[in-house]
Amino acid sequence: MSQDSLQLDTQGRLRHFLTIEGLKRSHLAEILDTAESFASVGQQSVKKVPLLRGKTIINLFFEASTRTRTTFELAAKRLSADVLNINVSTSSTVKGESLLDMLRNLEAMHCDMFIVRHGESGAAHFIACHAAPHISVINAGDGSHAHPTQAMLDMFTIRRHKGEFGALRVAIVGDIMHSRVARAEIHALTTLGVAEVRVIAPRTLIPAAVDTLGVHVYHDMNAGLRDVDVIIMLRLQRERMQGALLPSEHEYFTCYGLTEDKLALARPDAIVMHPGPINRGVEMASEVADGPHSVILEQVTHGIAVRMAIISLTLGRAPTGDASGQETG
Amino acid sequence: MSQDSLQLDTQGRLRHFLTIEGLKRSHLAEILDTAESFASVGQQSVKKVPLLRGKTIINLFFEASTRTRTTFELAAKRLSADVLNINVSTSSTVKGESLLDMLRNLEAMHCDMFIVRHGESGAAHFIACHAAPHISVINAGDGSHAHPTQAMLDMFTIRRHKGEFGALRVAIVGDIMHSRVARAEIHALTTLGVAEVRVIAPRTLIPAAVDTLGVHVYHDMNAGLRDVDVIIMLRLQRERMQGALLPSEHEYFTCYGLTEDKLALARPDAIVMHPGPINRGVEMASEVADGPHSVILEQVTHGIAVRMAIISLTLGRAPTGDASGQETG
Amino acid sequence: MSQDSLQLDTQGRLRHFLTIEGLKRSHLAEILDTAESFASVGQQSVKKVPLLRGKTIINLFFEASTRTRTTFELAAKRLSADVLNINVSTSSTVKGESLLDMLRNLEAMHCDMFIVRHGESGAAHFIACHAAPHISVINAGDGSHAHPTQAMLDMFTIRRHKGEFGALRVAIVGDIMHSRVARAEIHALTTLGVAEVRVIAPRTLIPAAVDTLGVHVYHDMNAGLRDVDVIIMLRLQRERMQGALLPSEHEYFTCYGLTEDKLALARPDAIVMHPGPINRGVEMASEVADGPHSVILEQVTHGIAVRMAIISLTLGRAPTGDASGQETG
Repeated sequence: MSQDSLQLDTQGRLRHFLTIEGLKRSHLAEILDTAESFASVGQQSVKKVPLLRGKTIINLFFEASTRTRTTFELAAKRLSADVLNINVSTSSTVKGESLLDMLRNLEAMHCDMFIVRHGESGAAHFIACHAAPHISVINAGDGSHAHPTQAMLDMFTIRRHKGEFGALRVAIVGDIMHSRVARAEIHALTTLGVAEVRVIAPRTLIPAAVDTLGVHVYHDMNAGLRDVDVIIMLRLQRERMQGALLPSEHEYFTCYGLTEDKLALARPDAIVMHPGPINRGVEMASEVADGPHSVILEQVTHGIAVRMAIISLTLGRAPTGDASGQETG
Repeated sequence: MSQDSLQLDTQGRLRHFLTIEGLKRSHLAEILDTAESFASVGQQSVKKVPLLRGKTIINLFFEASTRTRTTFELAAKRLSADVLNINVSTSSTVKGESLLDMLRNLEAMHCDMFIVRHGESGAAHFIACHAAPHISVINAGDGSHAHPTQAMLDMFTIRRHKGEFGALRVAIVGDIMHSRVARAEIHALTTLGVAEVRVIAPRTLIPAAVDTLGVHVYHDMNAGLRDVDVIIMLRLQRERMQGALLPSEHEYFTCYGLTEDKLALARPDAIVMHPGPINRGVEMASEVADGPHSVILEQVTHGIAVRMAIISLTLGRAPTGDASGQETG
Repeated sequence: MSQDSLQLDTQGRLRHFLTIEGLKRSHLAEILDTAESFASVGQQSVKKVPLLRGKTIINLFFEASTRTRTTFELAAKRLSADVLNINVSTSSTVKGESLLDMLRNLEAMHCDMFIVRHGESGAAHFIACHAAPHISVINAGDGSHAHPTQAMLDMFTIRRHKGEFGALRVAIVGDIMHSRVARAEIHALTTLGVAEVRVIAPRTLIPAAVDTLGVHVYHDMNAGLRDVDVIIMLRLQRERMQGALLPSEHEYFTCYGLTEDKLALARPDAIVMHPGPINRGVEMASEVADGPHSVILEQVTHGIAVRMAIISLTLGRAPTGDASGQETG
């Protein structure tokens, strides 16, 4: 089964959330609209809606990531679901239980959702492929630590600031080659119909097949940033430094680090995004990270609403109206 | 105090759940009936009953077991209790706090229940023996990793499939000598009045005192399985392989592994059980584990309902009628 | 900003809870009165009040302490808050994320409170100093593993037994020099207006500046205990034994361990306190720890009510009347 059809049911509705690829504009719009209805929950006095009370959500983490686990656990709890954290490396796999037997067991306990974090690419797809019909799977990161929920919270943040996507010029800066975030962002942006996507990176960090993605490639930061509305900085995987692909951190910052000077080339109301955690002084200067154009902390805030939306949509339980008013207690 | 009286109150009602030994048929029947009332909760849209709201249940684990912890945590949460996971190896015992002082402290915090997992046999009994009157203790496994809740969920699974116990022939296959599961199963089955219990194992894995348990001993798998209604496969502790007690895994499988051929000797409607996780190709062939006679995943499902029953009964809070209808929200 | 003003808002109300120093008698009384209204919650059938439903509380632990984490997690859950446990050593700090960036992220997720445990003195202050306006911080121990909530639960225990503070003589026994507990206790007791605070310790364990604290110093246990109403035993940090500051455990017990003989010098209705875990046979004899004058387990019980009070007060959500009657379910 292809990834595209795997995450949709026969009516074309979202059943798993594994990758941006294969989703239509209407799917992305539904996620963004649903997230909008949850966005005010975090600001209420009672930050909870009863939408998923009695649902059981498993954080199935094959590698530790407190940061990611926290965002999903918060999103699930604010939907009133019961959450169980299972760290598989310390679990029954040590007794020789196979992954499939473990899934069968969790399914038999009438769990509703696996939020999967795994070090290897394709793990969430594999699990979705073998999961029982009543289970939804969300990809919370595999392979190069990207997760498609990151791309959606970025789209939500852009829409909140810019309204429509149609006229936007967006630059993605950094290690395009090894970043699955970049790929997901490009898919989401083009699906949502932005005017132009630019990728800015040294030649060593641009994949050969980049032309097929419908983006414009820049190797010069100053040229690439000119007149853009949105700047998406990628996190630099420091382990790349050991190889020959990258110069020193200092040299990287000089060429591709976002400074106030370079930012001035973008549009005056440009926003700066980063998935976190930031390597200050490598990907960007602290003045930019904490400056007026940065929407980095808003991304974190919106991440909760977007994950609430994706969890409830894949479970077939999205709110019909304004979710924030549902709490009675 | 004997184990028998320890787990019952002065009215003969269940107060702790430590071992099957010493329980009457009426106790087991009460657990099974209560589990029946919870069995539908897992299939409801809201998988929760408010029976134990405001109760505090401590998963007191002196050795890690994600699998066991998960089943008890799910059962407790579906009863709406608050659950705290305490991994004692990383806890204050490192500060030299004695076990009894730790128990006194948890009791003083008005906890209601300790679900105890310990590597040494008798640990749950010791804790129950020294617990305050308001505390109930459940044995979630000690010594050879058996727990009496496993025997009860097996009985529940048998009753669901076979109705009455009176006419049943049940075979227990594997390492009878070192398995506390086997002992608990034999006690439960004879207490519930099955027609015949057979144990099937190599001579090296049959305890000397087996005659006193009222079972028939078979060393030949083909003879032992003939016309049985229920086959309970034990999990093989692979560490036994190192000693002289067992031949190779392959040889074990040839003699005592459950294959479709051997299964054909049992009654046509025989069910196959296993506590999990399965060593495929050692205790049984995958065709059997995943075949139409296998009820292994049902055991997992029923495990939640049976643990909900044992938790609520020992806390004196069992539902009077059908528990599944109690949720109001 | 000084510590005093840091933990109070502009109206002088408690906003963080970092240290006893700088708090007025009215602050301490408000905590004790609020704890009184929660004291019965632990004895109810439903041990929960809905006061903080929909609030998100983070146990932000930079060093493991199951004991402390448990008390705060229980207090928060009995207030119906959502609790997330974050163990920072295994968290994203390994990715090079700075502490401040981590705080900003958690704040952006609309968390309401950080309960901070850190190995270094001043960490909770630092975090409170840099926290967003909507966040409250509670110090759950820093530096020498003291936490000011311990002092407050001791005050609560004393008031429960003795009613008024005005006429009391209180002795604090043990390592005054290295104990931040002692310092907090002295501040709390003098603020609440006890008649006399005595500190009893060998010369090597009395700080030079002790005179400024308004206490009477005793090096002789028998003299110091005479006619006191309350005896607060400090926990001996065994690592001090390695240095030259302390003799052997046996010798320490002979001079400063609390025995029944020494206890007989105090008032007939004297109470004996200890923060736990007790080093039996070092700080006190088991006969005393478990004897009729000991209120050590009551301290644990009251610790939950006092932490519920401090959590709800700093969040501006203290109950107006009797909190125990608020639960409707």
